[in-house]
Amino acid sequence: MKKEEYIKLALALADKGIGRTSPNPAVGAVIVKNNKVIAADYHKKAGEPHAEALALSKAGADAKGAVLYINLEPCCHTDKKTPPCTKMIIKSGIKKVVVSMLDPNPKVSGRGIKELTEAGIETEDGVMEKEALTLNEAFVKFITKKRPFVILKIAQSLDGKIATAKGESKWITGEKARRYVHSLRNRVDAVMVGIGTVLKDDPSLDCRLRSGRNPFRIIVDSSLRIPLEAKVLKHGDWKTIIAATEDADAEKATLLNKSGHNVIFTKKRAGRVDLGELMLKLGGMGITSIMIEGGSSLAAAALSDMIVDKVFFFTAPKIIGGSDSITSVGGASPSSLSSSIIISGLKTRRLGDDLLIEGYIKNP
Amino acid sequence: MKKEEYIKLALALADKGIGRTSPNPAVGAVIVKNNKVIAADYHKKAGEPHAEALALSKAGADAKGAVLYINLEPCCHTDKKTPPCTKMIIKSGIKKVVVSMLDPNPKVSGRGIKELTEAGIETEDGVMEKEALTLNEAFVKFITKKRPFVILKIAQSLDGKIATAKGESKWITGEKARRYVHSLRNRVDAVMVGIGTVLKDDPSLDCRLRSGRNPFRIIVDSSLRIPLEAKVLKHGDWKTIIAATEDADAEKATLLNKSGHNVIFTKKRAGRVDLGELMLKLGGMGITSIMIEGGSSLAAAALSDMIVDKVFFFTAPKIIGGSDSITSVGGASPSSLSSSIIISGLKTRRLGDDLLIEGYIKNP
Repeated sequence: MKKEEYIKLALALADKGIGRTSPNPAVGAVIVKNNKVIAADYHKKAGEPHAEALALSKAGADAKGAVLYINLEPCCHTDKKTPPCTKMIIKSGIKKVVVSMLDPNPKVSGRGIKELTEAGIETEDGVMEKEALTLNEAFVKFITKKRPFVILKIAQSLDGKIATAKGESKWITGEKARRYVHSLRNRVDAVMVGIGTVLKDDPSLDCRLRSGRNPFRIIVDSSLRIPLEAKVLKHGDWKTIIAATEDADAEKATLLNKSGHNVIFTKKRAGRVDLGELMLKLGGMGITSIMIEGGSSLAAAALSDMIVDKVFFFTAPKIIGGSDSITSVGGASPSSLSSSIIISGLKTRRLGDDLLIEGYIKNP
Repeated sequence: MKKEEYIKLALALADKGIGRTSPNPAVGAVIVKNNKVIAADYHKKAGEPHAEALALSKAGADAKGAVLYINLEPCCHTDKKTPPCTKMIIKSGIKKVVVSMLDPNPKVSGRGIKELTEAGIETEDGVMEKEALTLNEAFVKFITKKRPFVILKIAQSLDGKIATAKGESKWITGEKARRYVHSLRNRVDAVMVGIGTVLKDDPSLDCRLRSGRNPFRIIVDSSLRIPLEAKVLKHGDWKTIIAATEDADAEKATLLNKSGHNVIFTKKRAGRVDLGELMLKLGGMGITSIMIEGGSSLAAAALSDMIVDKVFFFTAPKIIGGSDSITSVGGASPSSLSSSIIISGLKTRRLGDDLLIEGYIKNP
């Protein structure tokens, strides 16, 4: 097998940790000797051992003279609960380390590789770097910008409607697309909706996959209108974060906090929560990725506040029609077409009858 | 080469006639002898010779013992300006005829093949039938329903907007998509827009391809608000059809008719032109295919009146946003999601940066 294939294996292993390792990156490690994989593992959860440590421990004395393939440069810092991986690699007798991408943290980027080289270990980096950057795109954003990576998810008809005028929205997309949304919930730290969606649909926002885990729930509720009996406040195991503006009802906030939830205040922007400020606060809480799931107004506000990194348009092969139906991205029309938001790296795929159109938003 | 490849050749030739042969079908003919194409041609324009006649004439005496491949069953009727092709084929000494599809006209379907068989010619049909049916989908609709095949074309953003609130719509899609629209105009008998689009954009609705030809222009203008100086009334060579309701200004209609245009009246339906009645009248005029190019209200009316067969959603990788922006399919919201219009046979393709999503609407 070629080095790209071993790295692919490491990436596939790393992928299993997505949504679990936060705020750590997802890392897979593969140890190869005489063209044979002798050990492989991945980082499973923050606080638990790193991928390199697990794989090296599996390989034991056999690691001597082997090649280690990892999708991310090994850590060299000692400000963690786990010992630095570079020390462990050097001690193991590994003769060569192949990595996909350097540590995105500018303070330590390249230092792990340097330490290995200085210890006489051969190193190579940049193997399938693009794939590695995509896999850990949330971590990269979080480390470099101190804010969560934000996905805007929309389920719409071909003509861009997410509900009838009366608000009926169940279901526009098919079962396969909806199951895919649950798998996405399993991969992000938090899902976020506007208070309008809570008042209208009273969703649970849980992840209904077997062996899935529920993401944090964030409700953007500028003036704290959320009913205490809302389903998103009723899950036992996970707290809900409610974002409000500074002038929101303090008594209601106290009540929510006392019920074990977490009310966060931001300054007022355009009469509502300042989403940029909210992201900085959520980043400070260690939330590395968020999926916005509705509705029309929150989608518009998120794009306007430039917090969105990636979009998923689940598009059903149907036309709903109606100037009074609910459009996928609401808010106010731009004054000119040149203010449209450009999506790059467009990809499409079929999910049952539906079409998933995804791409990235380049924010300054 | 296999029979499918010869039929493919016939289909490619036939395709050259699309938009020219109306109200006739597009037909290509390929004559093969000793595994060699000895003659091939296609029907170029109604009134001119049929594909079979042209190819047989090219082949001359060599046709004896050869195989004729055609995408449509040869005609046997004598109610045309051109002599029936079956007679000509029998006379030529062709030993076998391979066709893709039978004549869609139930009155004559299969009769051409029967005549050939009875004359001792071997026949085969159904070779690449699906492709042949798609190529002549407009003709099939026209022959079986006496109405034109209607394409609804929309150029929108990912979130289903076709213009800002102020009406700015130039341009949402890129150059490649717009050029493709011109090639579509070259393939339909007529393009149709609502009066709103004329008043707002004053389009020419011409086909700007080299060697392209302008389609008929149809303006749906229920109360005859069209200004006499509108660009669509100013093309020299082609008349414009204006559709109005019976109670529209008769004097204005006379004025338009006197300028060489053609005002068609229908009964009033939902306060506007009855598009079903209009289609029957346009079919009676020999118009076999129409592309609806806007705007939001006409798109909604056309879907509501169930005249649309096929949709082309040219979707730009951008988000315009705005509840007040113009949505691609306007009109009134359906009362329930179950009244959404289902698109089948969805296909996507890239046109530059844009995405073309096309599919069919199954009307009763």
